[in-house]
Amino acid sequence: MVQLSLNRRVRRSPFSDKVEAAGVSAYTVYNHMRLPTVFRSLTEDYAHLKQAVQLWDVSAERQVEIKGADAEKLVQMSTPRDLSRMADDQCYYIPTVNAAGKMTNDPVLNKIGADRFWVSLADSDLLLYYQGLAAGLKLDVEISEPNIHPLAIQGPKANELVERLFGAEYAATKFFRHKTVRIGQTDMILARSGWSVQGGFELYFDATEDAGTFWDRAMEAGRDLDIHAGCPNGIERIEGGLLSFGSDMTFGDTPYEAGLGKYCHDTPACLGHAALQSATIPERQIRAIEIAGDNLPACDRTWPLKDADGGYAGQITSAAQSPDFKCGVAIGMVEADYLAAGSELTVETSTGPRACTVRDKFWI
Amino acid sequence: MVQLSLNRRVRRSPFSDKVEAAGVSAYTVYNHMRLPTVFRSLTEDYAHLKQAVQLWDVSAERQVEIKGADAEKLVQMSTPRDLSRMADDQCYYIPTVNAAGKMTNDPVLNKIGADRFWVSLADSDLLLYYQGLAAGLKLDVEISEPNIHPLAIQGPKANELVERLFGAEYAATKFFRHKTVRIGQTDMILARSGWSVQGGFELYFDATEDAGTFWDRAMEAGRDLDIHAGCPNGIERIEGGLLSFGSDMTFGDTPYEAGLGKYCHDTPACLGHAALQSATIPERQIRAIEIAGDNLPACDRTWPLKDADGGYAGQITSAAQSPDFKCGVAIGMVEADYLAAGSELTVETSTGPRACTVRDKFWI
Repeated sequence: MVQLSLNRRVRRSPFSDKVEAAGVSAYTVYNHMRLPTVFRSLTEDYAHLKQAVQLWDVSAERQVEIKGADAEKLVQMSTPRDLSRMADDQCYYIPTVNAAGKMTNDPVLNKIGADRFWVSLADSDLLLYYQGLAAGLKLDVEISEPNIHPLAIQGPKANELVERLFGAEYAATKFFRHKTVRIGQTDMILARSGWSVQGGFELYFDATEDAGTFWDRAMEAGRDLDIHAGCPNGIERIEGGLLSFGSDMTFGDTPYEAGLGKYCHDTPACLGHAALQSATIPERQIRAIEIAGDNLPACDRTWPLKDADGGYAGQITSAAQSPDFKCGVAIGMVEADYLAAGSELTVETSTGPRACTVRDKFWI
Repeated sequence: MVQLSLNRRVRRSPFSDKVEAAGVSAYTVYNHMRLPTVFRSLTEDYAHLKQAVQLWDVSAERQVEIKGADAEKLVQMSTPRDLSRMADDQCYYIPTVNAAGKMTNDPVLNKIGADRFWVSLADSDLLLYYQGLAAGLKLDVEISEPNIHPLAIQGPKANELVERLFGAEYAATKFFRHKTVRIGQTDMILARSGWSVQGGFELYFDATEDAGTFWDRAMEAGRDLDIHAGCPNGIERIEGGLLSFGSDMTFGDTPYEAGLGKYCHDTPACLGHAALQSATIPERQIRAIEIAGDNLPACDRTWPLKDADGGYAGQITSAAQSPDFKCGVAIGMVEADYLAAGSELTVETSTGPRACTVRDKFWI
């Protein structure tokens, strides 16, 4: 790893003081913010995430708030997922696309009321897309980046922690639904969601309340649960098949290539609708890929996939050595000829070629 | 400084191999790319930049290409700077704004022909704004991120290097003008521009040619000029008053607050035109600020400015210790009451308060 130069542009969050005190050792930059990536070590953080509970400062999941009479119309223009039956307490994972049907982000959309949404972003300034589109069409919406900083509570003991902090009715929140919880003098959104498959919640922390005070309260409540500061884990998220926009799919890919065809409904109101009609059978698609051997190097760039004849078969976009599965776990964009589970390929890693196999599903 | 976790999302450039071989020691992340920030040390890089010539991989200045019959119309909608008399070989520094008159970026706009522009970005996905606006208005444009990776040639000996590489007619390029230069089989744009005030050029390298081959050729040509790999320097750019979007001004600021009023013309075609009419006398504005003393700590966040009574007077947004000027050099957003040169304030740095003075201009 290399050093990261810090300045105002790489923004801090209201939780940054606590994250630093907890010993963050590496960051990435995500939506112009510092997003922790490692505390103790990637593998220690991984093992702990699977057995205890962690607090994650995921403020870098910036919110775009869209409210007003045309709010749903604007959001629907940006995604092929049908929003017409979305409940007021619901969260949707939505691929967002431009008019060419190419992905612009893969946020979680939170409906906060009839005419109010929070688009909880992956790493791109989708705020600017909404501003441009709303200006062009003179839509009746207000678009802003509110003072909201998601704090994730993740791990198998997340339920217990949420019950202690807020009560049993909050721990009973259904998957991808949210409830309103009072913290200090402020109502906040608590959703059952998060960027791990260990279970957990995301608290959309409103920084009109003091973030450090709440952090300390949560840490105190979880002390005997072995609570620790954590972050999205680069191994666990691959095992669980959680895609990373910018790594696993980019501005150049369609939702079908990203394996998100199930979110592409017949929604003519989506500006990418026409383009997506001819993209339903993609020439390449995301797959889980198992890489043989130990000590896989850090995957700091794409790695080419080759077939038995040395022909191009796609590329690995994320990879890590899995302690639990005793293999390299990877996500790759695989060319159509090699999509079948069991396809045997070679990946050119930065420390040499390795045998690998296309899988039918992710690990956990 | 802390560690930066690297993955595909934090993109490499065609010059990354050379940058790594040259000993890059720190990066920032800029437009989802790795942008070098330090090679030997901030102060060694600084001294060298002022006396020799450096090659900078500034691929992170991503290009948005806008071409088609409505290209100028679309760009003009995004900026208050009048584009009507822009020549086909001209570069304009343009604040870009949304319909509310708030800044979205401060790119260099390169006109490449009658209906073709490259918007050379600071750190935001302005691509998405243009896509949204063009879709809303059904404009006749193609918008893309081309395979172009700027390589800057900066420093007092940049002229000599360009003359050796391309000939005297290229070294004679006027400021913020560009010429077309043939490299291999490909025509590329060479502009007299760059993010230092030491003089120099930006070569908009088309990566259909091999970047490493050109890098080596330039290094060889500059060997007796003491050429070295470099990058935008955090001290020199403050001395020279080169603003950093995201640090010195953000999505929340107007061009007038950023001191860019001279680029705000009477251009009703700019969507922010009406909003900007009421923003001409800002309540705060960017200023150069001199900070007393030695050993200024790294400015990794904003630092509050206080007046003699302890009242809020603004904030420092970038700062560094200047070897040449023997003081702290800083950029700050200063409240209206304290804008006059000579205003004496206190800055709350991360190592305690310091006396500082508002200046009438930058240092170099």
